[in-house]
Amino acid sequence: MKERLQVEIFGHRYTLTGESNDADYVRSLAAYVDQKMKEVARQTQGMPQSKLAILAAINITHEFFQAKNHQKERETFLDGKTRDLIESIEDQFEDFKLE
Amino acid sequence: MKERLQVEIFGHRYTLTGESNDADYVRSLAAYVDQKMKEVARQTQGMPQSKLAILAAINITHEFFQAKNHQKERETFLDGKTRDLIESIEDQFEDFKLE
Repeated sequence: MKERLQVEIFGHRYTLTGESNDADYVRSLAAYVDQKMKEVARQTQGMPQSKLAILAAINITHEFFQAKNHQKERETFLDGKTRDLIESIEDQFEDFKLE
Repeated sequence: MKERLQVEIFGHRYTLTGESNDADYVRSLAAYVDQKMKEVARQTQGMPQSKLAILAAINITHEFFQAKNHQKERETFLDGKTRDLIESIEDQFEDFKLE
């Protein structure tokens, strides 16, 4: 069932339609965009709303890309750590090997 | 040094100013927002650009939040796996313990 939810972003009311039945989550998305638009507005003067929204979208995309890169780096780091651990265990067991 | 870069998003030219000296990266951010706005535009009819940009920003925030949640779940999963592995190693070594 499609859900319709009223949210307020940068002083305007919008009706969001989505599959999600988690209204709190959808409100948190709207609140994040609202916060990011207000951040951009504080740093600029009299910028039209469409431009504010686009700049906010660019800033959120930057955070999203950074999170993805961080995750990729972390996976690579943990892969290396796991390999080291396995090698270290194999070395320990070599001490007990029967020939 | 602040860098100024011209990008095109949804048929409009914008000048972005930022600390980044990686023009390709900044262009990839703009291209992502452009793509997300075009996706929203395809699903709606005659929506004003400011609303398109806000909906695109909400969709990007959703992806960003999903990535963060996925990362948190993955960390919890890997923490559990690491604990299991350490316990399993400790169990192995118990077989050899001297009392």
